[in-house]
Amino acid sequence: MDIKTYVTEKAQKAKTAARKLSVLSSVVKNTALVKMAEALVEKTNALLSANAKDLEEAKRRALSKAMIDRLTLSPRRIEEMAAGLREVAALPDPVGEVLRMVRRPNGMQVGRVRVPIGVIGIVYESRPNVTADAASLCLKAGNAVVLRGGSEAIYSNAAIVKVLSGAGATAGLPDDCVAFLDNPDRLAVMEMLKLDALIDLIIPRGGEGLMKMVTENSRIPVIKHDKGLCHTYVDEDADLAMARSICFNAKVQRPATCNAMETLLVNQKIATVFLPTMIQEFQAAGVEVRGCPKTRAIVPGINEAKEEDWTTEYLDLILSVKVVKDMDEAMEHIARYGSQHSEAIITRDYGRSRRFLAEVDACAVFVNASTRLNDGYQFGLGAEIGISTSRIHARGPMGLEELTTTKYIVLGEGQLRE
Amino acid sequence: MDIKTYVTEKAQKAKTAARKLSVLSSVVKNTALVKMAEALVEKTNALLSANAKDLEEAKRRALSKAMIDRLTLSPRRIEEMAAGLREVAALPDPVGEVLRMVRRPNGMQVGRVRVPIGVIGIVYESRPNVTADAASLCLKAGNAVVLRGGSEAIYSNAAIVKVLSGAGATAGLPDDCVAFLDNPDRLAVMEMLKLDALIDLIIPRGGEGLMKMVTENSRIPVIKHDKGLCHTYVDEDADLAMARSICFNAKVQRPATCNAMETLLVNQKIATVFLPTMIQEFQAAGVEVRGCPKTRAIVPGINEAKEEDWTTEYLDLILSVKVVKDMDEAMEHIARYGSQHSEAIITRDYGRSRRFLAEVDACAVFVNASTRLNDGYQFGLGAEIGISTSRIHARGPMGLEELTTTKYIVLGEGQLRE
Repeated sequence: MDIKTYVTEKAQKAKTAARKLSVLSSVVKNTALVKMAEALVEKTNALLSANAKDLEEAKRRALSKAMIDRLTLSPRRIEEMAAGLREVAALPDPVGEVLRMVRRPNGMQVGRVRVPIGVIGIVYESRPNVTADAASLCLKAGNAVVLRGGSEAIYSNAAIVKVLSGAGATAGLPDDCVAFLDNPDRLAVMEMLKLDALIDLIIPRGGEGLMKMVTENSRIPVIKHDKGLCHTYVDEDADLAMARSICFNAKVQRPATCNAMETLLVNQKIATVFLPTMIQEFQAAGVEVRGCPKTRAIVPGINEAKEEDWTTEYLDLILSVKVVKDMDEAMEHIARYGSQHSEAIITRDYGRSRRFLAEVDACAVFVNASTRLNDGYQFGLGAEIGISTSRIHARGPMGLEELTTTKYIVLGEGQLRE
Repeated sequence: MDIKTYVTEKAQKAKTAARKLSVLSSVVKNTALVKMAEALVEKTNALLSANAKDLEEAKRRALSKAMIDRLTLSPRRIEEMAAGLREVAALPDPVGEVLRMVRRPNGMQVGRVRVPIGVIGIVYESRPNVTADAASLCLKAGNAVVLRGGSEAIYSNAAIVKVLSGAGATAGLPDDCVAFLDNPDRLAVMEMLKLDALIDLIIPRGGEGLMKMVTENSRIPVIKHDKGLCHTYVDEDADLAMARSICFNAKVQRPATCNAMETLLVNQKIATVFLPTMIQEFQAAGVEVRGCPKTRAIVPGINEAKEEDWTTEYLDLILSVKVVKDMDEAMEHIARYGSQHSEAIITRDYGRSRRFLAEVDACAVFVNASTRLNDGYQFGLGAEIGISTSRIHARGPMGLEELTTTKYIVLGEGQLRE
């Protein structure tokens, strides 16, 4: 069978499954998710031996230690996947909620009801847990999924899908609602991205290369999570103790995440008071600080921040620091270099907090809180499938609601168009 | 200047304007829209002489009478455009509305605020009024627009944009917030569709060819309005008098629209009672009826409906009729041939009304009402920029809210990620 036929058949079956899934009750879906969790734990040995094949291949191909770590399954990681599935089962079902139903002058009632999107394609890299996480969120929201994981995790992913599908079928999920592209050929992704008649949405999860490949080649709408080049602006009227603890948290608590701070912007009026102790604190935690000329005049001995530092998502214990004249200069810097991800101001000033919230363009804007809080759990969505920096459909943490669309329903008693 | 530079510069300026537009007050935007309306009427003569150039060219190129009619401006049509602008000015401003703000366990407040999408590209055909309609809705929602009209209306569109821009500037709108591609080269559209760093959303308005060209070539998210192949199913428990008036309205009131009925599905239990008078009524109104074999057995002498009739959006006084065994067969037919636009059931049965609403996949599903009611005004959105049959972002009539996105705002007092 050629690759195009192979991918098309998988997607066609997923589309057929999606129609059945869309009308399943929450009870059936939740029971299936719980059974999937049980099955993953029960089949731990099978999953580990599939994973061993991927690890062997990874060593043969001399993949990096970090990559091998992300690829590795363990009984504990399998338990965590199962726990994730149970959490998704416990979340409220978004499907069927009726939004803003109104009575129109002619007496008909018009409302919008939340319905599944249909078929969601997930294109992702190395971590096999994405297979279970993404599938469970899509299924809970009534969608079929077409999964395309990285070739380096192909045995692990196939084993996980097999377990999920088996358990789902016993609970009454339709066949093929979790489709998996087990052909590692890169052409399979390219064909998948053309199937706009069968797949309704693509969510890529991975590095910059994957994102670029998907957006440039997809005819299907894509919701993406781009890089997080996040700033914190410490205003002239900041509570400096609060500013220190928030900035420290935003940089150090987990530097490899997309919502960690990469650049600190400090108002010149408080820079000489704030920066020396703040930078000392960062350095004590192992952070390399790179400063603008004014920063280096206040704290001598630190490295110079070059133009490329303002555009770099370090994802590491490195921080660039810039002293700014005022909030306008800070907002200009954010508009020029920011990635519209997570941006914060620390201030006690009411007017500036209002302006910052209104004028800064990002999927989440914070006043007096750490950018690290940009997260589905923290925002109360339950689980998230990622943080969207797209502007269309979903923006910010994407939970179950963002995996649905709506349709209008109209209840009449004979209304006509006049 | 090459075409790529030409289009990129226009879009870049629109993007700069969008940032300023996004924080304008409703008062400034509404004043601008009212001034634009006044200016259009004042400049009637200039608009008519620009339009005359297009009409001259259209005659030279021997365009169809229908096309020339759509292209023609008149004092009355200019008045209508102005009235449209005043209506948009009177609508509530969606920007700034805060949705579902909640207090999280750590005390921070998290909400979503409606913000403009940014820059919206409109690609459209012949009717010059789209220029004013689309621009006004985008501007009211705080978006800059890049307009690309059909080459056949280029003088009219350029003249309208000039009037709108002049009036907007006197009211305080930023320069270039209404960008117009006045180069008729087809390459200009192709370049426009690649500018995903500058344009946030593309809305095509026009025929099937335009839709296809845009979706296949755009790297920018597209919200489209596909064809409307709409059905009405008359159930065995329908109120037959109501069914007759709804079906007549859905077909005859304005047959050239996307939400008009193209296929009538009738339950076999009431077909012999319902169809003869219904078809007579249609024929009296000049509707050509094409029937399935059972329909033709009940009402002899009508034309045969062929396979292609079930897939054709007539947009005309033609109707295909099929007798079905039950609602399941009707829903199967709709799933197979429908365009997920507007679908209706006529019934007095509670259970079947619930099932039809839940199981039929369309942007609007009706019980006991005419599909012709699928419309922004009828649904209470005010004006609409079109009816979206996309599943992502907007589905159904697209009003001002659908021209916005949201961002999360977080109000804290020192909250950290634990």
